[in-house]
Amino acid sequence: MAQQAKFVGLDVGGTTMKSAVVTDDGRPLSAPVVMDTNPERGQDEGLETMCETIRRAVAAANLTMNDVAAIGVATPGLMDIKAGLILDPPNLKPWKNVPVREHVARCFGKPTAYQNDANAAAYGEFWVGAASEAKSMVLFTLGTGVGGGIIIDDAIIEGEHSHGGELGHMRIAMPDTGRQCGCGARGCLEAYASATNVVRRAREDMAHWRGAPSKLRDYYTANDDEFTAKVIFRHAAEGDELALKVVDDTAYYLALGASAVIATVDPEVIVFGGGMVAAGEWFRSKIDVYVKRFGLPFPTRSVKIAFASLGSDAGFIGAAGCARLLVQKKA
Amino acid sequence: MAQQAKFVGLDVGGTTMKSAVVTDDGRPLSAPVVMDTNPERGQDEGLETMCETIRRAVAAANLTMNDVAAIGVATPGLMDIKAGLILDPPNLKPWKNVPVREHVARCFGKPTAYQNDANAAAYGEFWVGAASEAKSMVLFTLGTGVGGGIIIDDAIIEGEHSHGGELGHMRIAMPDTGRQCGCGARGCLEAYASATNVVRRAREDMAHWRGAPSKLRDYYTANDDEFTAKVIFRHAAEGDELALKVVDDTAYYLALGASAVIATVDPEVIVFGGGMVAAGEWFRSKIDVYVKRFGLPFPTRSVKIAFASLGSDAGFIGAAGCARLLVQKKA
Repeated sequence: MAQQAKFVGLDVGGTTMKSAVVTDDGRPLSAPVVMDTNPERGQDEGLETMCETIRRAVAAANLTMNDVAAIGVATPGLMDIKAGLILDPPNLKPWKNVPVREHVARCFGKPTAYQNDANAAAYGEFWVGAASEAKSMVLFTLGTGVGGGIIIDDAIIEGEHSHGGELGHMRIAMPDTGRQCGCGARGCLEAYASATNVVRRAREDMAHWRGAPSKLRDYYTANDDEFTAKVIFRHAAEGDELALKVVDDTAYYLALGASAVIATVDPEVIVFGGGMVAAGEWFRSKIDVYVKRFGLPFPTRSVKIAFASLGSDAGFIGAAGCARLLVQKKA
Repeated sequence: MAQQAKFVGLDVGGTTMKSAVVTDDGRPLSAPVVMDTNPERGQDEGLETMCETIRRAVAAANLTMNDVAAIGVATPGLMDIKAGLILDPPNLKPWKNVPVREHVARCFGKPTAYQNDANAAAYGEFWVGAASEAKSMVLFTLGTGVGGGIIIDDAIIEGEHSHGGELGHMRIAMPDTGRQCGCGARGCLEAYASATNVVRRAREDMAHWRGAPSKLRDYYTANDDEFTAKVIFRHAAEGDELALKVVDDTAYYLALGASAVIATVDPEVIVFGGGMVAAGEWFRSKIDVYVKRFGLPFPTRSVKIAFASLGSDAGFIGAAGCARLLVQKKA
C-alpha cells in the first residue's frame, strides 16, 4: 500500500493561529504550532504568518512540503467560502477581502481548502471526534459567542451566503420579549447561552435570588472581575443552588436550540463544544433531559447528545479534513 | 438525440392520491389522475390503488409502462424514507409499516424513488417551480399544518429519522409562553401560522378588538362555520383593519420561521406554498419586510422570498423529479 496521505490544517483566530500536519486517519503528527495573528499589523503580514505557521507545522512533523497532499485553512466569518475570501470579520480588523485560499495555494502549489472555523471544527468532530460514527451531525460551539456547523453525509452545509450553521443566531424567543444579542437582534440563542450571557444571566439571577444562601453570590460581590462561566459551573458542581439554576437554565436554552435543528436537519448526533463542556456528564445529561422534553418526539427518541472530544484542536483537524475532502471522502 | 426520458410521479394524501407522467424537463403530460385514498379500507387496497393511479396516469399520457424510466412516490409522514416505508401517519389510519417503495417497484419492475410529501413538493419547486434558478431552497407549506422541505445542491435534507424539514415544529416562542401546537408542544411555528391557527388567532383578536369597525367581525358572528383563513385574507385585501392585523401577524410569524432557516441552512431562496399564498404579492412583501428585519443581516440582504408556482401539482411533479434523481441530476 502507498504511504498514507498527509494534510496540513490551519485554524486562524483573532488572537492566534494554530496548525499541524494531520494523517489520513485524522491524527495530528505534532502538537499544533501556534503563532500570534496580530490582525492590526495588516492582512499582508497576516497572510505571510499563515504560510509561516504552515511551514513550521510541516517542520514540526519532520516532513517537507513534498509529503503534504493538500492544505486546509479555517477562518472566522464574515467570509465568502466559495470565493476563498475573508471579507471583514469583527475580530480580524482591519482586514478586508483577503484572498486566503488563493494566497496559500500559490505559496505552496498545493490543493487548498477554505472553510469557516466553526464548520471546520464541526467537520473535525464528525471526521474523528465525538460524531465519528455518525452520518450526520450538528455542532454547537459555546464560547464568547455561540457558533455552529452542520454536516450531512460528509458535506458541510456552508450556506448560499457562507452563513450555514450560524446557530447562535437562531431565535429561541420572540423579538419583542427576547434577550438582546450582540448581533443587534433580540431572542437569539447566543443572547442566552454564550459564556458571556451565562455570566449576565447569573448577575440578574443574583439580584433577585430568594433561595438558599449562595457562595456564588458572595464570591461575585467580592470578586467581580473574576466572575466567569467557569466559576458558575464550578459552584454548580459543588451544589450551590443559585449556580445550579443558572446552569439548568443554560441547558434549557441549549436544548431549545437543539430542538430547532432537530426540526430542520434532523441529525443523528448533536455535539456541544467549547469551555462549558468541561463540566462533563452532569451538564450533558441536563441538556439531554430538556432535548427529550422539547424536541419532536420521533426523531428525538434516537438523537444522540454528545460533548466534543477534540477540544481546541477540532479547528485545525477539521481544516485538514476539509483538505482531505478535496481528494477523497470519509472512510 | 434519444427520446426524452419520462417519469411517473405519485403524491399520496389522506383523502386523494394524484399522479401524472412528467417529462425530463418537468412538464406533466396530462392533468393529474386523481383517485380516493380510502385509508380506512386498509393498506393492501391502498397499495393497489397507488399502482392503479400510476397505470391510469400512464394511460392518460397515451404511453405504456415501457416509456417510463422511473417512478417516484411521495407520502405523508411518519415514514422511513431510506427503508421506503410508511410507518403510521395520523391521516392514513389504520395503515402501519406499509412497504410502499418495494411494492411499487415490484409491481412495475421500475426504479422507484420514495420521499416525504412536503420534501417532494420542495423538490418540485426547486426543479421547475419558484426556485428553479436556485442552488438551494427552503419551502414552507402552509395548510392545516405547516410543513416544509430543504433542498441543497440537488439533495433533499431527509434527516437521519426522516424528519428533515419539519419546519412547522421549529419553535418561534419559548415553551412556557408559546401557543399550544397540535403536536403537544408549545411555541411551534405551526401553532401560529397554519390556516387553522390563523383562524384561531383571528377569533382571539376579535374578542379584544378595539380598532375600527370590522366587517370580518360581523361576518364571523353571523357565519361561524364558514370562517376560514381565506375569508380573513379576503377581508384584509379589502382593507379590514382587524383582518389586516391577523394577516400582518401571520407574516411576522412566518418571517421568524424564515429567519431560523437562514441561520441554519442559509438558503438562496425561501418559498412559501399552500392556500394562503393565493393572497399574492401584498402578502409576500409583508413577509419579506419582516424577514429583512429579523434575519441575520448579511445573508438576509440577498435571500429571496418567493411564493410557490406549482400549486398542488408540486407534490407529484417533485415525486417525478425524485425518480429522475435516481438516474440523473438537475440540469
